[in-house]
This record gives sequence, structure tokens and C-alpha cells, in this order.
Amino acid sequence: MVKLVFARHGESEWNKANLFTGWADVDLSEKGTQQAIDAGKLIKEAGIEFDQAYTSVLKRAIKTTNLALEAADQLWVPVEKSWRLNERHYGGLTGKNKAEAAEQFGDEQVHIWRRSYDVLPPAMAKDDEYSAHTDRRYALLDDSIVPDAENLKVTLERALPFWEDKIAPALKSGQNVFVGAHGNSIRALVKHIKGLSDDEIMGVEIPNFPPLVFEFDEKLNVVAEYYLGNK
Amino acid sequence: MVKLVFARHGESEWNKANLFTGWADVDLSEKGTQQAIDAGKLIKEAGIEFDQAYTSVLKRAIKTTNLALEAADQLWVPVEKSWRLNERHYGGLTGKNKAEAAEQFGDEQVHIWRRSYDVLPPAMAKDDEYSAHTDRRYALLDDSIVPDAENLKVTLERALPFWEDKIAPALKSGQNVFVGAHGNSIRALVKHIKGLSDDEIMGVEIPNFPPLVFEFDEKLNVVAEYYLGNK
Repeated sequence: MVKLVFARHGESEWNKANLFTGWADVDLSEKGTQQAIDAGKLIKEAGIEFDQAYTSVLKRAIKTTNLALEAADQLWVPVEKSWRLNERHYGGLTGKNKAEAAEQFGDEQVHIWRRSYDVLPPAMAKDDEYSAHTDRRYALLDDSIVPDAENLKVTLERALPFWEDKIAPALKSGQNVFVGAHGNSIRALVKHIKGLSDDEIMGVEIPNFPPLVFEFDEKLNVVAEYYLGNK
Repeated sequence: MVKLVFARHGESEWNKANLFTGWADVDLSEKGTQQAIDAGKLIKEAGIEFDQAYTSVLKRAIKTTNLALEAADQLWVPVEKSWRLNERHYGGLTGKNKAEAAEQFGDEQVHIWRRSYDVLPPAMAKDDEYSAHTDRRYALLDDSIVPDAENLKVTLERALPFWEDKIAPALKSGQNVFVGAHGNSIRALVKHIKGLSDDEIMGVEIPNFPPLVFEFDEKLNVVAEYYLGNK
């Protein structure tokens, strides 16, 4: 039985301030740092031994991965970083708090952007301080695939190749996999793994802590799903 | 002009206690943690932008790499970990302090093991608590290449394929490379890069701080060599 452990990053500075974050590269809060360490301790207690870890190119997920692996005594495990595991890009809402966004666009509209599967938030300007177009980490991507805004549908579409090319083959070859990622990139992969409908996935919330575990058989059927520490 | 930055890990707990460390997976000391962060600050001040980072499978080097990249605002840079960048394996001396080793084997003999290019220290027992043969991180290696003791010559022989397959091709393709490694794995690569004799390399010491920079032309000729902050 192989295991896939999803760790959403611990609380970030912007989670704490209630800002839309998306691709802004925000650090973990002190609480978030401790959550990452505690995730690693739960992994160690559960006796899970990883063969491979994956994370995004955003520091809150990378640090969560490194801190958790270290606390699990597995810092030597290979870690691959990919933009495909990034948080949903929140477009023009990035950096705004929820009240500011509601004032500018109306409560109902903001609710739709947050809760609908396939409605795009307003695009971020290409010269915005948070634009990915001028960020060196995305420089090797064709500019046409660097997003200015994403909904969960688009997030799944760009995360899915990473599942297909990396995560699923690793699991099928018998490797235990750690994924340190984000609320919406994990949600997208959970939708795919469980075959949830567009409506069903919008009711699923991924907490910053504890990590979510899937166990699979050799054909990648889900045989167990639980939060670490709650098996 | 491409740049290769060698960062020996910051001071470890066993550096501080003056113990032979080798492949024992010892943590950074508080001072070593700060040295790693300071290395990253020097990288940022120098304006060096990395495309790729490499490190060993030992936590003191991995943490140095992660802390330095974070302090340089480049934590998203890909990091590949390889046992080929590990510290020289100190065999049966591992975990002993220098006085204990001198008492057991004699001052002169210990001096020879430390300072000769091609004399092997006594082999570590396969059931030693620090043996690599029972360590999961080396489980995929053929047991015959997992060392029980190394001199600098052997360290270079097993580090060289990593230079040839990874570091040199990255540099030749125009990438700036960070290598977070160890006193002797860096020494081995410096011998190769500079074409030093066996005697010459034994006179070279790599400090825990600051990082050592090489600049290369497109044919990988060295055009500059300096410690970061001292250009």
C-alpha cells in the first residue's frame, strides 16, 4: 500500500491578515512554521517513510516541505519544485483583503469568484508588482501559459500534467510521496483522485494542518483517506 | 561569464565539539545556521542569480543550501541532492574526537589519515551506528559502492561523475550554480577544476564561511576565483 501525504502549507502572513494571496510569494507566520514542524512530527509518529517529495515554487510551501521533512528525519528525500503545484492565481484580487475586494467589486461578486468552479477573477495587470510575467522563476515558461488569473478549473488543468507525469508514476512504482502545496492545488488534485463533481469539490476545504493522507492499491484505487493523527 | 558558488556548510555541532564527522548526519550549530543565512545575504548583495543548486544528502549541507537560498530570495531554485557530494567518509574515526583518535592510533598515524591524499583511515564496522549500509538514503546504491572509509582520492573519484554529469553541463549551458557541500567534497572538486597536484590540494582549506566563487568562460576555463564579499 503506497501513501500520498498532502500537506497544505502552514498559516502564512497573508492568511493571518486575511488577504487574497495566490502567487504572491508570502512567508509562513510563526504559527505556520510550527504547523509545518508538527506535520513532520506526525509523519514520524506514523512511521511514514517517503521516497519523493514535491512542492510548488512558492516559499510557504517549500518551507513547509523542508521543515516537515526535517522534523520527520527525512530531509535527504529528493524534493522537486514545480509551478504546477502553485496556489490558484487570484488575479486582480491578489494582495487585497476580503473587505477591500467586497467594497470594490460587491459582496456577491467576490463570493462567486471564491466559490465557483469555473468563473475567473479579474485579470492581474501585466505590470502589477505581483505579476508572474516579470518574475525570474517563470522565465522559462512560454509567456502564454503564465496566468493572470485562475479559477479552480484552470488550476486543475495545469496541475494535472504534474500528477500524470510525476506523482502518479511515483506512487505506481511503489514510492511513498509527500506533496507540500496549497489549498487550491491540493483541492484540484483531490477532485481528480476522488472523481468529485465540480459542485462537490467546492464544498471541500483543505486545512493548513494536519496533513491529509491517501493510501492506494497498486492500480491507484483509493483504499483509505484520513488526516494524519486521526487514523 | 557563469558563476559557481561553493558554500561549505556552516559550523556543525560536531565541528564545534572537534569530532570526526564524515557521513554522520549532524545538525548545524547556532553559529552554523547564522553562517548559512549570512552566505545568502552575501549572494544577494553580489546580485548572483542561480539557475540550479546541488547539495549532499547530509542535513548540514542541505540546511545550509536552503537557508542561503532563502536569504538570497531564491528558495524556488531547483535543488538536487546527491550522496556524491557527501563529506569524505571518515571510517572508524567517525564520532571520535581528535584526542581520542590520537590516543587509540597514535598522533602521527592520525595526522597521516587527515593529511595524506590516498591513505585510507580504518574501515567502519558494517554494524556501526553510523554505517551507511543500514541507512535508507543509500538503499538504492549497490552495496559495493557504499563506503566504509574514504581518503580524498576516493572522495574525488565518486564526486567527479556528479561534476561531469550535472555541474559542468549546467555551467556550460550558461547556468549559475550553487553547491552546498562539505570541506572535502569541495576540496576534491577544486582539485579537479584547478588541476592541482595531490600535494597542492592537501594545503587547501575550505572555510565554513564565506562561500568560494569561481567564474568560468564558455569553455569552462577559470577566469576568476574569490571568496564572496572579498572580490
